[in-house]
Amino acid sequence: MAAAPSQTILFIILLHIFYIFVPSHQYHPLDSLTPSEFSQIRSIVTKAYPESSTHKLTFQYVGLEEPSKQTVISWLKNETTTNPPRQAFVIARIDHQTHELIVDLSLQEIASKRIYSGYGYPMFTFEDQENADKLAFTYPPFVASIRRRGLKLEEVVCESFSVGWYGAEEEEGKNKKRIVKVMCYYMNGTVNLFMRPIEGISMTVDLDEMKIIGFQDRVTVPVPKADETEFRESKIKPPFRQSLKAITVVQPDGPSFTIDGHMIRWADWEFHLSFDVRAGMIISLASIYDLEKQQSRRVLYKGHVSEMFVPYMDLTEEWQRRTFFDAGEYGYGLCSMTLEPLRDCPPNAVFMDAYFSKQDGMPRKIPKAFCIFERYAGDIMWRHTEATIPGKTVREVRQDVSLVVRTVSTFGNYDYVNDWEFKQSGSIKVTVGLTGMVQVRGTTYTHKDHMEEDVYGTLVAENSIAIHHDHFLTYRLDLDVDGDANSFVRSKLRTTRVNDRRSSRKSYWTVDSKTAKTESDARIKLGSEPAELLFVNPNKKTKMGNLIGYRLIPEGVTGALLSSDDHPQIRAAFTNYNVWVTAYNKSEKWAGGLYADQSHGDDTLAVWSNR
Amino acid sequence: MAAAPSQTILFIILLHIFYIFVPSHQYHPLDSLTPSEFSQIRSIVTKAYPESSTHKLTFQYVGLEEPSKQTVISWLKNETTTNPPRQAFVIARIDHQTHELIVDLSLQEIASKRIYSGYGYPMFTFEDQENADKLAFTYPPFVASIRRRGLKLEEVVCESFSVGWYGAEEEEGKNKKRIVKVMCYYMNGTVNLFMRPIEGISMTVDLDEMKIIGFQDRVTVPVPKADETEFRESKIKPPFRQSLKAITVVQPDGPSFTIDGHMIRWADWEFHLSFDVRAGMIISLASIYDLEKQQSRRVLYKGHVSEMFVPYMDLTEEWQRRTFFDAGEYGYGLCSMTLEPLRDCPPNAVFMDAYFSKQDGMPRKIPKAFCIFERYAGDIMWRHTEATIPGKTVREVRQDVSLVVRTVSTFGNYDYVNDWEFKQSGSIKVTVGLTGMVQVRGTTYTHKDHMEEDVYGTLVAENSIAIHHDHFLTYRLDLDVDGDANSFVRSKLRTTRVNDRRSSRKSYWTVDSKTAKTESDARIKLGSEPAELLFVNPNKKTKMGNLIGYRLIPEGVTGALLSSDDHPQIRAAFTNYNVWVTAYNKSEKWAGGLYADQSHGDDTLAVWSNR
Repeated sequence: MAAAPSQTILFIILLHIFYIFVPSHQYHPLDSLTPSEFSQIRSIVTKAYPESSTHKLTFQYVGLEEPSKQTVISWLKNETTTNPPRQAFVIARIDHQTHELIVDLSLQEIASKRIYSGYGYPMFTFEDQENADKLAFTYPPFVASIRRRGLKLEEVVCESFSVGWYGAEEEEGKNKKRIVKVMCYYMNGTVNLFMRPIEGISMTVDLDEMKIIGFQDRVTVPVPKADETEFRESKIKPPFRQSLKAITVVQPDGPSFTIDGHMIRWADWEFHLSFDVRAGMIISLASIYDLEKQQSRRVLYKGHVSEMFVPYMDLTEEWQRRTFFDAGEYGYGLCSMTLEPLRDCPPNAVFMDAYFSKQDGMPRKIPKAFCIFERYAGDIMWRHTEATIPGKTVREVRQDVSLVVRTVSTFGNYDYVNDWEFKQSGSIKVTVGLTGMVQVRGTTYTHKDHMEEDVYGTLVAENSIAIHHDHFLTYRLDLDVDGDANSFVRSKLRTTRVNDRRSSRKSYWTVDSKTAKTESDARIKLGSEPAELLFVNPNKKTKMGNLIGYRLIPEGVTGALLSSDDHPQIRAAFTNYNVWVTAYNKSEKWAGGLYADQSHGDDTLAVWSNR
Repeated sequence: MAAAPSQTILFIILLHIFYIFVPSHQYHPLDSLTPSEFSQIRSIVTKAYPESSTHKLTFQYVGLEEPSKQTVISWLKNETTTNPPRQAFVIARIDHQTHELIVDLSLQEIASKRIYSGYGYPMFTFEDQENADKLAFTYPPFVASIRRRGLKLEEVVCESFSVGWYGAEEEEGKNKKRIVKVMCYYMNGTVNLFMRPIEGISMTVDLDEMKIIGFQDRVTVPVPKADETEFRESKIKPPFRQSLKAITVVQPDGPSFTIDGHMIRWADWEFHLSFDVRAGMIISLASIYDLEKQQSRRVLYKGHVSEMFVPYMDLTEEWQRRTFFDAGEYGYGLCSMTLEPLRDCPPNAVFMDAYFSKQDGMPRKIPKAFCIFERYAGDIMWRHTEATIPGKTVREVRQDVSLVVRTVSTFGNYDYVNDWEFKQSGSIKVTVGLTGMVQVRGTTYTHKDHMEEDVYGTLVAENSIAIHHDHFLTYRLDLDVDGDANSFVRSKLRTTRVNDRRSSRKSYWTVDSKTAKTESDARIKLGSEPAELLFVNPNKKTKMGNLIGYRLIPEGVTGALLSSDDHPQIRAAFTNYNVWVTAYNKSEKWAGGLYADQSHGDDTLAVWSNR
């Protein structure tokens, strides 16, 4: 869109157009905030709320305040000559209160402000966690507990865990504070600390005061051994697995995609790629070029991770609260990791950095947060051998080459590999790969046969139980199939009896398509019956009069297993269905609510959908 | 297994051991029949049943008669010094009767013979179909019908369709013969004949007599236009799509797998690859090397396609019988196509030929029927960034490289891409890709808005309706996890209420594992509840006392939609459940029965499981 010349022209007349085009990139209304914009935001906010010994200011979230969809679409159509105002949304903690600020970068001022007084708290910053994790080391009861176990303090590593919410009774009491639980691990011979939990010790940290307000040393459990926990290939001892000969991907003429600011163009696709500290990767304005109509047709206005709910099933004291909201509490973008060339991404990959605001408002870079590459896995996109014509064989085969954009988000032990894959067939495939380490609880057990009670998991090694848990990853997909007026059609396949004598068949199936009229019509539990989920533009038809739409094709379907009245499930009620379709509302981005940490479930997708 | 030296040693002392090892390959008891064995079988059978003007003999199926599993396992363990007897199973039509012969190649004689008198007929041969398809062109009523439509006879191509079975009443009458329906297509300007059906004309051909025994010209419908049906890239006219720059896979030091006869070894995997004219690709004796135990551990005794049921949902006269059994009627192996290097398989692929018996018993080669290649799609096998340790970041990433064995089977319009992928993680991923052309019925309609009745499909172009249909692909997997004593365990995840005060949680889930005691315990409809399907060896345990097993992880689950009393569904009752686990029985290979053509459903997996 944004009428830019092709990459070829850019190369030829690079010197002439350089100054024209760099500003053009900076002003795409959906571009992520730049390092200099983060610095400007910081200046504007700290000027309005000067820090002092009595006034503490922390930036919990800084991201683009998007222009409205209508504004962006008008801008794309060149209906407006000026760029939409550039704004940022800031969530700050100022003197124990959550402030929501809209900062206008064009006017260099705070455009609006309000204090949030509802339930829940903003995302943790890295500094929140790092500072909380350090407190234990100078906290005498903790130091004594470590010594009593015969462990070396310098080999201990601590981590912060969100605490969730467990009902009104506790709310009235001590927990009406922004707190985390801190629990610790032991290294001493390994970097695989998640395999060496120090069970029984937990601390409660008040993040705003940054001090330990609770400490418990409940029970002593053996720390699992360091033996056989090494995962670094360079440190593993023989016997070794059979090594494989090199295999690599080669593009002798370079990649087929172009990157123009944040716009990526490949084959018939174009889309905008951006980054948000909470959502991670954001794909916007994905459009596919229609050769017949000689125009780009939009498919997706915006798509990103909305929430990741990870409840553990362990009722022991230190574990029962582990019901994480990885995006809303820890930041799917904040936990984006630098990708390793040649290993995280193939040799033909191109990398892009990402930026976020530190707790003090200054920008921090995540080098190589994204990689973009063309994938050829040896697969076939389409083929046919025509062997029916006597005396003639026709064979036509097309290779399946696609474009992948990847990020990796690591939350403590778990690494999520996030891919958006654009296919020449016109499909977009969104996948997440789960890797890293399981969370294990230390235990006295060394063999399954000794276990007499429910241990809430599987004994994977001596003294190590991998705890049962789920991962519910929720994406927000704002589909704009061929324009923004879209409807949701659910087509069920229904067995139909043949009662007349028109056929020797007794049955066949027909398609029963229903357009959802209300949001409650459009809540789907998958897996129970064969159905197709279609997003169509009711104003457009094909030449034959068929609907124009995109199918949502889910894989690996499952459902929620906690009771619906259980507090973690009230907070994660957005997992009660697999698919929810709601009318567009710019503010309804986060399925678990804007303030996920210690939320009460009053701002979830389930609540919006009921309205 | 078969204690062979490694490939390295083979290279060094190649001349010395050449004569030792070539025979060894030929005698692996699971090897496919060789061209010379097909010729020997033909000689033995034609000697016993000499052909003449009054005695017609056709070879409908010729394949390896496998030694028993116990015999093969003893041989593998070197418990026997001699090779098991080499035998073939032959199904022949001799004078309108189905004969089952076991031919002993060692003794050069027919070891057993019987005449089959039950329901159903053997697979069609290519010659059955080619000869049937030709009959129309010299059949005056057909020629007249084509002329009346103003079509050129030389541009017509005909195809044979199996007829299924529709109940006792018709059975008593004309259909107690080995018949097919022949219907035709028009080329005249295209090779994409499936887009140009000539509706309304159908012929019934008696395959044993090889003559037309029924003809109907019921209705005249416009033949869809040839315009825009071209699929050959070389013939497509502009405007062209944006072409992509080259992308290829390179292995500078060659592949990491070795092929030793029919045994393939790669990474920690080894398996036997063979071919059957009905099953297509067969993977046997898949074993993975255990580095700790310093031994190979078997996972799978044998795996292959058992049946592919493809019912169409069109009740019109010429379409209602289209309820195909692609493996049992047409042969998943018989329809294996030659693979195109660089397109069907990547540049690092190695190809293998396959052989089958023609109708006259002589061998015919399918050049490049298999390809074997290492896949690297840019994916990550395992990774972790350890960012929790203060002042230190540890990152470890392993690339996901796997081994793929591929065949393509083309049944008229449809092409199935069959992959068995062996992963370094220890998993085996079996996939099928559906490509080719849809089956369209000719129609007078040119726009959806004109349609007043149920057309049984989607109007995809003027005069062309793509008919609703299903593909049910059934694999037979004889798992031998760590030995042949295997049990099936279904682990359901169950919500458990927390009623005591031990936790602030109200619920969690537990795993409820049940070992199937009977075959009816082990029939599974997937999708209704979260469960894990495990195949375990109850005699083996891990060091921690856990079960040793493999999980079956299904994707893209669906269920049967025809009424259970409908004849096609009685024949395909094996699709009533997604998973069936039955005790080993060498003869129960084909889910739809040994004689799938015109079967009555009395020899299906559903019947065996009820016994």
